[in-house]
Amino acid sequence: MVLYWTMAFDTNSIIRLPVIVIVGPGLLGGSVALGLKAAGFAGKVIGVARSQATLDIAKQVGCIDEGTSDLISAAKQADMILLATPLKTFRDVMGQIRDHLKPRCIITDVGSTKSSVLLDAREQLKPAQLKYLVPSHPMAGSETQGPAGASAKMLQTRPCIVTPLPESDPDTVAAIKDMWALLGMQVIEMTPQQHDKYSAVISHLPHLLNVMLVQTAMQMGGMEMASTGFKGATRLASSNPTIRSDILTCNRTAILQVLDGFQYVLQTMKQKIDDDDREGLLADLNEVMNFRNAWVEDFDHRGDSGKTDM
Amino acid sequence: MVLYWTMAFDTNSIIRLPVIVIVGPGLLGGSVALGLKAAGFAGKVIGVARSQATLDIAKQVGCIDEGTSDLISAAKQADMILLATPLKTFRDVMGQIRDHLKPRCIITDVGSTKSSVLLDAREQLKPAQLKYLVPSHPMAGSETQGPAGASAKMLQTRPCIVTPLPESDPDTVAAIKDMWALLGMQVIEMTPQQHDKYSAVISHLPHLLNVMLVQTAMQMGGMEMASTGFKGATRLASSNPTIRSDILTCNRTAILQVLDGFQYVLQTMKQKIDDDDREGLLADLNEVMNFRNAWVEDFDHRGDSGKTDM
Repeated sequence: MVLYWTMAFDTNSIIRLPVIVIVGPGLLGGSVALGLKAAGFAGKVIGVARSQATLDIAKQVGCIDEGTSDLISAAKQADMILLATPLKTFRDVMGQIRDHLKPRCIITDVGSTKSSVLLDAREQLKPAQLKYLVPSHPMAGSETQGPAGASAKMLQTRPCIVTPLPESDPDTVAAIKDMWALLGMQVIEMTPQQHDKYSAVISHLPHLLNVMLVQTAMQMGGMEMASTGFKGATRLASSNPTIRSDILTCNRTAILQVLDGFQYVLQTMKQKIDDDDREGLLADLNEVMNFRNAWVEDFDHRGDSGKTDM
Repeated sequence: MVLYWTMAFDTNSIIRLPVIVIVGPGLLGGSVALGLKAAGFAGKVIGVARSQATLDIAKQVGCIDEGTSDLISAAKQADMILLATPLKTFRDVMGQIRDHLKPRCIITDVGSTKSSVLLDAREQLKPAQLKYLVPSHPMAGSETQGPAGASAKMLQTRPCIVTPLPESDPDTVAAIKDMWALLGMQVIEMTPQQHDKYSAVISHLPHLLNVMLVQTAMQMGGMEMASTGFKGATRLASSNPTIRSDILTCNRTAILQVLDGFQYVLQTMKQKIDDDDREGLLADLNEVMNFRNAWVEDFDHRGDSGKTDM
């Protein structure tokens, strides 16, 4: 046991664990499994899903070695558990596994909000288990869903946010960060609050703007003139409504704060248009274009696969 | 002369005109010229531009037969004039040509706002000239600028809005509508006010939302987490600032009205998030997704070249 932990917390220790359990071996969970295997993980990956079809596909594409719908029996074997089911299920999953985990089982997740995960964990897990919890948000995705579309490549060059707890074991935090880096991700550590605010700005606000643009057109008309520009500007409005409404609930506080910030920006813009402040508007448009172009150049340079979209 | 007009206002009469003058043979003006030639126009296309380089390229790619910087000498020869310079220049161009046009010279344009064109025309053109004015807005474009990127294909399957004046000659209106249809466009007739409101909804609002999303990120942070989703949701913020600020000025009234409508939608959405109204939010997201998906299916079916973006 001593030897095991000594080895386990060397660099890339996660890939030397005997058993990793993926609860929800879908697109993202499956991609993590494929990435780990590509990186040399030689242990066993157990996938847990309610649907036998999902397990069959996950097995076929090589994401998992074993599949089961029995969460508890899988949890008992786990050296690391990755939660990759919808955000709303985390509380229930944690409640089910809490009495069945190995003492030092590492827990991480791929949830797209982080304060809510922390809330669920503090409520459901035991204090000793929280030491080995390192919430994560690998920011990758694609238009597809389910394990059939899983790929190790999908994760590469994408940001992965890691939000440790104050009581997180430093070695476990380091091991999880190493794992994401090993999968080719750009690991960034921040607090759950920071993560949720930034996610609200760069992910949840864009989605809401796409939705509200469609709603405005539904109310004010104009669809007969809509073309590819409108299509592109509303693409996110076709995202999965269940996943998106979960996010609106789970990240409610940060989203409301960001909507306040956006309303202020909108009011300022509207005032300049109302004032016919041509120089001010032109200056703003130039500033925004330059800011975005510089970011896009840097972003593309880091290696944009052109496939991911979250 | 009688015979000429009898022929000219048959179907597709525009392609039988002897001389068409394109003021601003850039991407859009050049594409119209290429479309007309592909459709069988055998007369002469004269391009007017200040820049000799633009004229040279327009000639090389076959948009124009002759190029000149002398607007008045070109206007004197014109049987039809197409205004394809920036919106802000229309007033000046109309003022320059008004004393030099043939009595029945047809005037049209490709301007992306229409009330402003009407205002300019009523101020600058003679009442007799207004009879042959048929403002148009072919809704096509691409990331490129200038005649080098011009192509007849760019216009195909795209909407083209035609906004006749009450005093417009019905035969001229029919001829212009036929011309756009001949270029493969979906011709829609409406009032300038309708056009400007609908444009504000489906084109100018999306641009402003992209810009304001970047501004929110500049103020609230989060760019370290930005990925392809943010990139796609801010694409329009990299549009040409001069063209865009012209539009904000020329379509000011309609844009302010649409921003009011958007603010109402935003307030309603924010209230539902604040109320944690999960069913209401899910219902809204589903309604919006279904509305957009049905439109996209129909739009793609009409033949989306995937190239145009306005």
